[in-house]
Amino acid sequence: MTQSLARQTDIPPRAREVEILDSIRRTFAEKGFDGASMQELARAAGMSVGNFYRYFPSKAAMVEAIVTRDLAEVEQKFADVAAAPDPAAALRAGLHERIRLEVTCCDDAPLWAEISAAALRKPEIGAVMQRMEREICGYLSRAFALISGLPEPEAERRFGAHAAAAVMLVKSSGMQAQALGGVVNSELTDLVLRMIDMILDEVSAVKAKG
Amino acid sequence: MTQSLARQTDIPPRAREVEILDSIRRTFAEKGFDGASMQELARAAGMSVGNFYRYFPSKAAMVEAIVTRDLAEVEQKFADVAAAPDPAAALRAGLHERIRLEVTCCDDAPLWAEISAAALRKPEIGAVMQRMEREICGYLSRAFALISGLPEPEAERRFGAHAAAAVMLVKSSGMQAQALGGVVNSELTDLVLRMIDMILDEVSAVKAKG
Repeated sequence: MTQSLARQTDIPPRAREVEILDSIRRTFAEKGFDGASMQELARAAGMSVGNFYRYFPSKAAMVEAIVTRDLAEVEQKFADVAAAPDPAAALRAGLHERIRLEVTCCDDAPLWAEISAAALRKPEIGAVMQRMEREICGYLSRAFALISGLPEPEAERRFGAHAAAAVMLVKSSGMQAQALGGVVNSELTDLVLRMIDMILDEVSAVKAKG
Repeated sequence: MTQSLARQTDIPPRAREVEILDSIRRTFAEKGFDGASMQELARAAGMSVGNFYRYFPSKAAMVEAIVTRDLAEVEQKFADVAAAPDPAAALRAGLHERIRLEVTCCDDAPLWAEISAAALRKPEIGAVMQRMEREICGYLSRAFALISGLPEPEAERRFGAHAAAAVMLVKSSGMQAQALGGVVNSELTDLVLRMIDMILDEVSAVKAKG
């Protein structure tokens, strides 16, 4: 996609791609997933409808592109955790930071609320979201393997629920903060961080037991 | 509403009201909050569009009616907790049961996903959802007062975050189960129940300290 989009503007291709995806995110968040028309999405991206359709033949293709970009960022964060001198501490700090970000900068919450709702109605969106969830849980399970000293397949089996619960907490803190109208409830944030600690402590306890 | 609706059918008024609200819930869940037209909502309820508009002049009015009915059920559950010989045990059992229901009978998840997403875009829906959240947190805080022996205003202040976190866990377990395509991840359920226990243990600990 990058190369073809580049032909249309003088902006460097990567920056143009980011700009288009950002405009799609904003439009979904503002108009709703069903409410946003292809015309509105194209106009917001500064493209003709015909050209826009070539890159994004469906809303599922847009969600796919948004998810792919977000997953690249997530992958990088987990690479940093694995490379850290103390991966357990780095993972804890990373998850805490992510929860704090979700509750303070919850601008993305309306987008994900829209996409999550659409995922329950439209199998093609559901499939993209399940892939995202699976990949993030995969990264978490590999980090849990590193922390617990268990082989990856066993860590995945034993801590799959821990990974899913951590993802659930991240997602729901953002939605909760947004539902409260952006008011940060710092006691709620602290409580969610204690739940994250509970999850990580259960994983670390396996190591302690040898 | 009950009385006026009753005039149109031979079904007892209460049953007819329940029937209409159920048809609205189903239509929102299937078509999406924006996707469902007033025509479709009226047809699903077996009413003329004109008549339907008289009862529900807006989608916000429908959400209000759905929320009001659900809150009446929640109120009854909390009355049962307060009347139980051991309110702490009854609350724990009630919350566990609710989480288990959310993950096994998650038919309501698409509806709430739709309404939650709409709440972030439409202030009038957001206001109804905030009222629901506030009322449920109020019931929880009063139960926490009973369990901890603290006066209600102090329990509300100290355990407001605990109440909000319990509501968050209930909501997100249903959405999570639905996102997994209805597959019950019993290890995830158990982990969420341990988080509920963590919340309740923190509340009970206040009592233990006197």
